[in-house]
Amino acid sequence: MELTEKLVQLDALQKKLYAFTCAESSLYLDSVTVAPKNTAEGRGVALSILAGEHQKLLTAPETKALLDELAAEQDKLDPLHKREVELLRRECEKMTRIPAEEYMAYTELTNRASDVWHKAKENNDFASFCPILQELVDYNRKFAVYYDAEKAPYDALLNEYERGVDSKQLDAFFDTLREGIVPLIRAIGEKPQIDDSFLHLEYPADRQKAFADYLMEVMGIDRSHCGLGETEHPFTLEFNNKDVRITTNYDLHNVASSMYSVLHEGGHALYELGIRDDLQYTCLTGGVSMGVHESQSCFYENLIGRSRAFVGVIYPKVQEFFPEQLGHVTAEQFYRAINKVEPSLIRTESDELTYCLHIMVRYEIEKQLIAGTLQAKNVPAAWAKLYQEYLGVEVPNDREGCLQDSHWSGGSFGYFPSYALGNAYGAQMLHNMEQEFDVFGQVARGSLSGVTGWLREHVHQYGQLLEPAAIVKNACGEFDPHYYLDYLTRKYTELYNL
Amino acid sequence: MELTEKLVQLDALQKKLYAFTCAESSLYLDSVTVAPKNTAEGRGVALSILAGEHQKLLTAPETKALLDELAAEQDKLDPLHKREVELLRRECEKMTRIPAEEYMAYTELTNRASDVWHKAKENNDFASFCPILQELVDYNRKFAVYYDAEKAPYDALLNEYERGVDSKQLDAFFDTLREGIVPLIRAIGEKPQIDDSFLHLEYPADRQKAFADYLMEVMGIDRSHCGLGETEHPFTLEFNNKDVRITTNYDLHNVASSMYSVLHEGGHALYELGIRDDLQYTCLTGGVSMGVHESQSCFYENLIGRSRAFVGVIYPKVQEFFPEQLGHVTAEQFYRAINKVEPSLIRTESDELTYCLHIMVRYEIEKQLIAGTLQAKNVPAAWAKLYQEYLGVEVPNDREGCLQDSHWSGGSFGYFPSYALGNAYGAQMLHNMEQEFDVFGQVARGSLSGVTGWLREHVHQYGQLLEPAAIVKNACGEFDPHYYLDYLTRKYTELYNL
Repeated sequence: MELTEKLVQLDALQKKLYAFTCAESSLYLDSVTVAPKNTAEGRGVALSILAGEHQKLLTAPETKALLDELAAEQDKLDPLHKREVELLRRECEKMTRIPAEEYMAYTELTNRASDVWHKAKENNDFASFCPILQELVDYNRKFAVYYDAEKAPYDALLNEYERGVDSKQLDAFFDTLREGIVPLIRAIGEKPQIDDSFLHLEYPADRQKAFADYLMEVMGIDRSHCGLGETEHPFTLEFNNKDVRITTNYDLHNVASSMYSVLHEGGHALYELGIRDDLQYTCLTGGVSMGVHESQSCFYENLIGRSRAFVGVIYPKVQEFFPEQLGHVTAEQFYRAINKVEPSLIRTESDELTYCLHIMVRYEIEKQLIAGTLQAKNVPAAWAKLYQEYLGVEVPNDREGCLQDSHWSGGSFGYFPSYALGNAYGAQMLHNMEQEFDVFGQVARGSLSGVTGWLREHVHQYGQLLEPAAIVKNACGEFDPHYYLDYLTRKYTELYNL
Repeated sequence: MELTEKLVQLDALQKKLYAFTCAESSLYLDSVTVAPKNTAEGRGVALSILAGEHQKLLTAPETKALLDELAAEQDKLDPLHKREVELLRRECEKMTRIPAEEYMAYTELTNRASDVWHKAKENNDFASFCPILQELVDYNRKFAVYYDAEKAPYDALLNEYERGVDSKQLDAFFDTLREGIVPLIRAIGEKPQIDDSFLHLEYPADRQKAFADYLMEVMGIDRSHCGLGETEHPFTLEFNNKDVRITTNYDLHNVASSMYSVLHEGGHALYELGIRDDLQYTCLTGGVSMGVHESQSCFYENLIGRSRAFVGVIYPKVQEFFPEQLGHVTAEQFYRAINKVEPSLIRTESDELTYCLHIMVRYEIEKQLIAGTLQAKNVPAAWAKLYQEYLGVEVPNDREGCLQDSHWSGGSFGYFPSYALGNAYGAQMLHNMEQEFDVFGQVARGSLSGVTGWLREHVHQYGQLLEPAAIVKNACGEFDPHYYLDYLTRKYTELYNL
């Protein structure tokens, strides 16, 4: 077979893989947005078959042969095809190590688990979720070996979300953060509390919806290519760089909740929308890693969204949306309120400073679950202990404790650390960006196009063309968590007059 | 291979086909409900690949071999497997005659056409839809030959929606209806008009939504297995008998529009929800034909929903939903208003009596399009002429004319007649049902369980276990359109005092 013909086959293979991903994403999106309550069973049957066919296609002997032949001729390939072959081979080899029936059973399990978790959270009933959580852990321990038998299981899982990162690095990373953050929090605890009561008045859902539309407009998100939906747990889902969906959740007594969800998910969306056209329908599209993805969402949520410049420029409009609630509140008061530091229970509603401590709790627990040194049934106790230790708060129930997040029910172990990494990458990107132009000067004038343009140029466009570490280096220089710690220290020292 | 092993393969094949159908349905549902505007392209790529894979699976040599071997042993098969083999072979043989690339191109075309039609309707711009309409017609003319080369093309298409029905029968059927209905309409035209102005006051969407929920409750639809969404054109979509979705459209100045859409789509939903569990994930689930499906939706929409007994029993509740608009309107006035006969432009909003004339217009045009005696570009003129001739109304623009329905843009030619057939089947079923119990006595007491139970027993449960004609015979006896005509004549003679 001629090389050109092989490349035609490679393109066709990737389009098929794309079609399966679309199908699975669409069924997933439906399941968490509009699907009636008791419909998980039939969807589970479909999803497990689609996942099985998807895997079968990726691991078929013809696929392997094609990829091997192309790899043998890699010097003749253009950079895109070369990289496609590299990533597909890696994926194909990995999936080949997972027995098809185990993979299908696991897909079916995660679909079912999501349903069980929803109900358990609703009823504050950890016992009903516990057996399936243990099952998910057991599968992940087994899959970790398929992913990379040479790594410790948790490292193998981490590598799925942030290639190249291991728990040794993360231990050091989190130690650095903890050592810097904990004294800050302690010092803040001795200062007078910021009044944020006006954030918790009644904010009608329809006004919050209109406000969410406005925020997406400010971010420059093209709504004809990006939908906004409503789910319990906000997320971003991409079909391709012309079709991205984000979701939010309207808390009637917390205007900041949806506001910062939209800025966060909007940041993910801008990443996906900014990937090059010529990477579409190939394995090179999509954000490169969870950590890099989070760096983009946190950039808009925290570095920009919680800055004085941003709050200042949008605040007159915020008051227009909520004149009764915010008419008498100044921009500075609002800025201080949305940056109020307060150790609390819910990760997604926590402030920027304590956020990483929430992640550390999950990191510690995951690590032990996957190592087999902690059983699912002991998670609530471990959770309570760590929240007490890191944040100094008492966990009153599992709904506000270990049942709060959807990640584990979706089978994601090793995902959480990427949130913290993302924050740290983002702060370092901001540092570099500020060397090039007056970031907050532009933001204060209401323009985010400079920021988005810089991120598109340094991060978004590449998709998976480069490795995560290369993209981080490209945008940050050599990674160093002190940029993040410096940013936090500077910001909160000023805010709390420490 | 042992027979039992072959049957395992048969079940697996059908589950895979089910999974592909789910995937395609989910992407379709998304496209008409929440997908952002400019996202058709990427979805089209995915859908055409999935349709291609779906077809490839159905027409694979191994599939054909399996089905042939099972057919050879059909005497040893239980009735379900025997029927499954019969239907799958028929489908496999048909699909084998359609070249894969044509099928994929057609799938991509219908996805694109739907988008073009939406915009054309919005802008009242037939010219922008015309070329793609002609393309759809040309594909259908070609596909008709693949479906059944021995039939005239339009008959082959009809057969896809209502197996066993041809245009000769339909010509006679429509002639009978026209001869009976036209004089009735003429006589009504000479009577004083019914006042239905109160139906067109302002009815807020949120109240209409709550009313729609109430109607589904009255119908006994289990909402944990049936969702209600919002689309421009209401429809029903089933994933399986535990997961059905219906949609409606809230017209702020027409309370009857969503009310009767919900009753109509709710009828479809009850059919799908009533199919036997043991037919799930096989080719035997799903309604047996479009005509039989419409018989169920029209049953709830018209025969029940527009009856004096039904209106009477729900009316106090209707007034509670809309006290300002209907507080001073009596149940009898409401009953008369929702049965007001008035030749008009929009099929989905037309009354029960003129409805079939709307269908006849589309039937005549489709027949000529597929015969090649009418070109797409001449559709608006033909539409105007037939609306004048059959209904005596002037068509002011294409948006309210030939652009009103989504069917052709979805590639459905030969579908429309099933609406009329369904109405006629339904009336005959009602006649039979009334021999067995006091239908409207029960309805007047607010109970639809007798009706739904009868329909479930005679129609729903079977899915596609029997041929459409057998189900019609089962529920109606020998089909005779005079039952329908008698029902209409009786009802409207009384209502209008003819």
